[in-house]
Amino acid sequence: MSGPDDEGGPVDEFDWIARGLRPLTEGAPEALGLLDDAAVIPSRPGYDLIVSKDAVVEGVHFLPDDPLDLVARKLLRTNLSDLAAKGAEPYGYFLAVAWPPGYGWARRKAFAAGLRADQDEFRLQLFGGDTVSTPGPLTASVTILGWTPAGQMIPRSGAQAGDVILVTGTIGDGWLGLAAAQRRDLGLSAADHAWLADRYRLPRPRCGFGEALRACAHAAADVSDGLIADAERMARTSGLRLTIELEQIPLSTAAATWLARQHEPTRARIALASGGDDYEVICTAPPGAAAALQAAAEALGFPMTQIGVVTMGGGVRGVSGGRPLSLAGGGWRHPG
Amino acid sequence: MSGPDDEGGPVDEFDWIARGLRPLTEGAPEALGLLDDAAVIPSRPGYDLIVSKDAVVEGVHFLPDDPLDLVARKLLRTNLSDLAAKGAEPYGYFLAVAWPPGYGWARRKAFAAGLRADQDEFRLQLFGGDTVSTPGPLTASVTILGWTPAGQMIPRSGAQAGDVILVTGTIGDGWLGLAAAQRRDLGLSAADHAWLADRYRLPRPRCGFGEALRACAHAAADVSDGLIADAERMARTSGLRLTIELEQIPLSTAAATWLARQHEPTRARIALASGGDDYEVICTAPPGAAAALQAAAEALGFPMTQIGVVTMGGGVRGVSGGRPLSLAGGGWRHPG
Repeated sequence: MSGPDDEGGPVDEFDWIARGLRPLTEGAPEALGLLDDAAVIPSRPGYDLIVSKDAVVEGVHFLPDDPLDLVARKLLRTNLSDLAAKGAEPYGYFLAVAWPPGYGWARRKAFAAGLRADQDEFRLQLFGGDTVSTPGPLTASVTILGWTPAGQMIPRSGAQAGDVILVTGTIGDGWLGLAAAQRRDLGLSAADHAWLADRYRLPRPRCGFGEALRACAHAAADVSDGLIADAERMARTSGLRLTIELEQIPLSTAAATWLARQHEPTRARIALASGGDDYEVICTAPPGAAAALQAAAEALGFPMTQIGVVTMGGGVRGVSGGRPLSLAGGGWRHPG
Repeated sequence: MSGPDDEGGPVDEFDWIARGLRPLTEGAPEALGLLDDAAVIPSRPGYDLIVSKDAVVEGVHFLPDDPLDLVARKLLRTNLSDLAAKGAEPYGYFLAVAWPPGYGWARRKAFAAGLRADQDEFRLQLFGGDTVSTPGPLTASVTILGWTPAGQMIPRSGAQAGDVILVTGTIGDGWLGLAAAQRRDLGLSAADHAWLADRYRLPRPRCGFGEALRACAHAAADVSDGLIADAERMARTSGLRLTIELEQIPLSTAAATWLARQHEPTRARIALASGGDDYEVICTAPPGAAAALQAAAEALGFPMTQIGVVTMGGGVRGVSGGRPLSLAGGGWRHPG
């Protein structure tokens, strides 16, 4: 996979499909070698196909100097995170990329290498898509397919009164990581800055957790717009109230170090819970199922932390030190 | 569906999803009201799901002053054309749009109205997608889903020696129509210019033709990159030669009028067969099946014309007046 003009000049799109994209099908029969107008997904009786589609734009969702292998991996991972939160196993994906002028073989190869790395890690193949040119910023979208046993997708809207609320991993690293990637000084060590920037650039979708979620959870969603905003949508679609204990929200060592240096710790915790790009899973489950979810997460190498409860009512409520939070102007959006 | 700032200002994306996009789901259970991270496609035993994904960029695939309802309809129709050529029935679609600054409610409403019009005409619903912002040109992609009975998708690669080649509708109108839409003088009447520009802006995907294709055709593809280029790909993937009689390629009245005024009619015919944006179906079938395909097309209100034959060999050959074409420099690409 190399071209006569390895960086600047025009790329023959048929050549790009043949040598850049076709290997990513790994011979999957669904893709028909990318030689046809469409892909063929055979029926899988007893299973539902779970489909999600996300798009990214240079300068909006990633930084212009972000390495393109990481951009591709983040695009795939944000889609994988949607599948993970629904309890679905990854299957395949469709990719549309609008390439700006001057994005030659070297950058395209980096993009394809990123896709390949994550295909290997998360076990899915390219099934099809489209390649076009644009006079604007690099723009890409992925349509991802996954499977759940029929009727077992975990909805966002399924929370029940009496459920506990749990969240995977740690919260706020993506938000701090964006600042770190922008080379803003967080007052942390170089190692912490690098770790946080990596968390921003390369989310860890909680794939492999689907069986436990399907067995235990009533409701689930991925945390992509900020924990509070995603909890708000879960509360609204479920018609219930989610009460979250601010001090229970799990933090990484780097985020906890940052928090310890802030003058207004409650506001800082709210900021961590309002930032986006976490790509963790928030779910609700009966109290008796929490231990099983936590054990399943531990077996996969990440924490699963109980952060609150579901009750009658509406919206998201914050609690800090046992007291309801006064959040005026705080960033706890739509507090009502 | 109206906003406080009907054209210029920012649009609340949640509001756009709720009032602009959710009605397009028409309550389809697959879409989960656009309230979740994913859509759920239940298994349909005995059927294959046919999936295609196409993207468009303002200034590349449509003109900046094209009405946005027509842009949306063309995007949906180019995807529907892929389904039609595979013999698949439309089912649903996913939409990702990157909106530039200043694309307020009025333009978004026009875009949604275009989608709605074609959903009604072609019977499919919105299942999900993504809405993002971009500093660049309006960019959109559709992932479309359709059904065929299991194993009955018509491949591009299925041509057999001895087949005849047929094409739906007329060829070259999209290419002439682009010139008409750009207000270039084709030497035709105002009515012909308007008719051709409409053909460019609003393709007629040959949906409804799937049953006849599945019953009769060995190979099929949609004509989107130009008849010759698409025939070339069919020849290459089938490992056979497609010979096309130039004078048999069906032309509209407007295109025939334009052709009659050209000094080099053979070159002009080649140009019509090399332009893109036709969104007709080219297929190959046993000679005995041609009449059935033509009768099915006639019942749907469009012509189906026999334009050539499939033989051993490779590539596409042109014949004009019974003689092989000399096509040096003529636009008959990759003459083989």
